[in-house]
Amino acid sequence: MKTRILSGLIMLPLLVIVILNGWILYAGSFVISIMAAYEFFRGFRELDIKPSYPIALCSMAALYILGALRHVAASGGGTGLITFESEHWIMLWIFATVLACLLYLFSIEKRKLEDSMVTLTGVFYVGFFCYTIGALALSEVNIMVWLVIITAFGTDICAYFAGVTMGKHKLCPKISPKKTWEGAVGGILGSVILSGIFGLVFAGELLPHCLVIGFLASIVSMFGDLTASIFKRKMGIKDYGNLIPGHGGILDRFDSVLFTGPVIYFYGMLVLS
Amino acid sequence: MKTRILSGLIMLPLLVIVILNGWILYAGSFVISIMAAYEFFRGFRELDIKPSYPIALCSMAALYILGALRHVAASGGGTGLITFESEHWIMLWIFATVLACLLYLFSIEKRKLEDSMVTLTGVFYVGFFCYTIGALALSEVNIMVWLVIITAFGTDICAYFAGVTMGKHKLCPKISPKKTWEGAVGGILGSVILSGIFGLVFAGELLPHCLVIGFLASIVSMFGDLTASIFKRKMGIKDYGNLIPGHGGILDRFDSVLFTGPVIYFYGMLVLS
Repeated sequence: MKTRILSGLIMLPLLVIVILNGWILYAGSFVISIMAAYEFFRGFRELDIKPSYPIALCSMAALYILGALRHVAASGGGTGLITFESEHWIMLWIFATVLACLLYLFSIEKRKLEDSMVTLTGVFYVGFFCYTIGALALSEVNIMVWLVIITAFGTDICAYFAGVTMGKHKLCPKISPKKTWEGAVGGILGSVILSGIFGLVFAGELLPHCLVIGFLASIVSMFGDLTASIFKRKMGIKDYGNLIPGHGGILDRFDSVLFTGPVIYFYGMLVLS
Repeated sequence: MKTRILSGLIMLPLLVIVILNGWILYAGSFVISIMAAYEFFRGFRELDIKPSYPIALCSMAALYILGALRHVAASGGGTGLITFESEHWIMLWIFATVLACLLYLFSIEKRKLEDSMVTLTGVFYVGFFCYTIGALALSEVNIMVWLVIITAFGTDICAYFAGVTMGKHKLCPKISPKKTWEGAVGGILGSVILSGIFGLVFAGELLPHCLVIGFLASIVSMFGDLTASIFKRKMGIKDYGNLIPGHGGILDRFDSVLFTGPVIYFYGMLVLS
């Protein structure tokens, strides 16, 4: 009970950051990116793979800085340095990141191909996926950031209770033995209902979109959870970390958020904007 | 001698494609992407790693299709489907590619983490790097595509002759035992001179830029060559393929082009446009 209250207290600043939204959340998303990437890389120690944290850190810092400059330029601030109206900045970021990961191999005797490929995977999976939450926070539809949290945690909690009370048919015993189809359906229903309530109270005219997002994000949320399970299983670890007592590390808590983030970001950019 | 002439004949269609430039070269760049990715993936068989060629193929097709739609939209054609003025399309492509590579792991008993990470590396290193050449071919400065070829092959040939005649000091014996510092300097000089001649004859006012590109691209060209050497050394193979008799596979011939492509593309987009 004591650790549960403690965990709640640790999650509290996060809630404040989401309430403040905008640049604060953008910065918060960067901090979570680098903490999650650190945990992800640490997990590979068990497999004797040594990805480059400095490269990942620089790459993610560059992504957030370029993204911020791009936002300022798009808001009429204008930097004049790079043509931010187009996709060149993010293409340049991809190139620089991949190049850095490849050059990492040049100490050929010290490095394995895996060291470089895990670095790349960490940046694109953990770093880039998390970045979309920050980018959503700077967008016109930044109220949707709430749905990133609501669908991820809503699915998780509702699936747990539905699974415990009604669970019979195993969902994917080889990846995560406790998950059931009944839990999955409960998770989706819970996510749709919670997103609907959110839409009704806070986002009036966007209510139908909230329901669609509640459904889509709930499904990818479970894939996010299972993806993290696969990595941990292959690494031979139970949790990515122990930052939040009783809840594992940042990446254990945010595995679903990493997937709901981009889905809601793209829904916001391509459908709502 | 016979194989050398044959090789020359095989390189001929390539020259025609570069002369035709534009959409033809865009399509040619796609074909080279998928052939090079195939060779790259095949090299990992030796390490018992099985990347997904279908995922890489779909991802690269999506990149070229989205890039084409984006070009049409930017030229005033307009598709109305996606907001192509901004970076969303390429961010969506990153997300979809990474997601597909992660979902590939869901057959958890059949797949290793490496299978997924090599797929990702193949798409971003081979596929995305090659795509920039196609994107350059559709741009306003598509004459610069010539420099992609001139700097890559110019560096290679001039470094070879300078190395053979004057080579004394080893450059990086652990990666590529025959390369020398004298060869490297000769390669850079050759690339700058050839780029200068090209600028003088074909791109009058862009001459100073051609010299800068000749210098920068020559250096990354050697990194491209060495990167391919590292991969082949770690894979335990001598060549990626035997498509071009006496010259190995597509990826053996285009390892430098993969690096000069993006550098000249970004120079063209950020400095010349």
